[in-house]
Amino acid sequence: MYGGGNNKIKENYIKKKEEMIRSGVSVLTEKGFSTAGINEILKIVGVPKGSFSYYFENKESFGREILIKYDEYFSRKLDFFWGDKELAVKERIRAFVANASYAMTRYDFKRGCLVGNLGQELNTLPKSLVKITCEIFVHWQMKMEILLEEARENGEITRNYDVKYLSRVFWSGWEGAVLRTRLERSVEPLEEFGKFFIEVVFD
Amino acid sequence: MYGGGNNKIKENYIKKKEEMIRSGVSVLTEKGFSTAGINEILKIVGVPKGSFSYYFENKESFGREILIKYDEYFSRKLDFFWGDKELAVKERIRAFVANASYAMTRYDFKRGCLVGNLGQELNTLPKSLVKITCEIFVHWQMKMEILLEEARENGEITRNYDVKYLSRVFWSGWEGAVLRTRLERSVEPLEEFGKFFIEVVFD
Repeated sequence: MYGGGNNKIKENYIKKKEEMIRSGVSVLTEKGFSTAGINEILKIVGVPKGSFSYYFENKESFGREILIKYDEYFSRKLDFFWGDKELAVKERIRAFVANASYAMTRYDFKRGCLVGNLGQELNTLPKSLVKITCEIFVHWQMKMEILLEEARENGEITRNYDVKYLSRVFWSGWEGAVLRTRLERSVEPLEEFGKFFIEVVFD
Repeated sequence: MYGGGNNKIKENYIKKKEEMIRSGVSVLTEKGFSTAGINEILKIVGVPKGSFSYYFENKESFGREILIKYDEYFSRKLDFFWGDKELAVKERIRAFVANASYAMTRYDFKRGCLVGNLGQELNTLPKSLVKITCEIFVHWQMKMEILLEEARENGEITRNYDVKYLSRVFWSGWEGAVLRTRLERSVEPLEEFGKFFIEVVFD
């Protein structure tokens, strides 16, 4: 037992845990929570079945960490596209839609939105995951609210819309469009919804 | 072997099969296809496990019949609300939204939209069910197109919208709103989306 060795063990432990969460994001984005199968994730990252509890208390707490990771990832994406002050707000939304179309095509329409997937599994999902899923939607909504406020300030929106309401409608519609895009294996629903939203909200 | 007895057997067989399909609609609307568990359905209608193949070739063909039944049921609902020529088109859509809010509350937000649920299980769903799900969406879209055409004819819509595109956007947005409504256990997302659609499409 010497410090260097313990540090190495700790480092490996943290690295492995992160790998499991990352791999969990991929698997859950494709398959949702119930059918995901922790075993599949363990196999991918090379952790023996019996060692799962060494990293996470149970499937539910693993799910929580995966959701938090996904929110971090997706929020960075939103900040990247929506924080670009060089572009008109309308163009920033367009860029986000185009990127989503590209990403869904790239994954052969197999990956949807993790929080959208979980929402559909509601009746079998642990309550703490439902709660986090709702909170993540609120988080993304706030980002849209800020964006639409900016559009109002810079004159891109002159009508007297309630931006909170618009932001909620945006995310509802977006999740539905992701679903249709996967079903049809075509980016048309995503692009249509983006176009519709921009057309009706902006002057 | 006499005619009367055979007829009775046939009658019972058809009745039982219908019960299984009806019960399948309920179970799948709550739980989706993968986790639904045929066994749960069999238990509800009192059919022994081993007798499933007496009624359906396999789970996939059972799923097909359930989807067709759901489409019939939901199309009747659409015709009821949207075919009411006494009301303005805008009011017919409002009535449909109000009914959906009522129904989701009544089932304690446990039931969503069967075709929306299946759409989220895409990667594990048999191809024939994906195909039928897409066809059902097209079917409902056509009903919305007819309705919006009527609104254009009677002057409720004067802007030069492409009604096919609007109808597609409506169903994408609707499915997303159903998802959010279940997550939040509140009819707000449904009502918001309905309000938004009516506000922007109608004069």
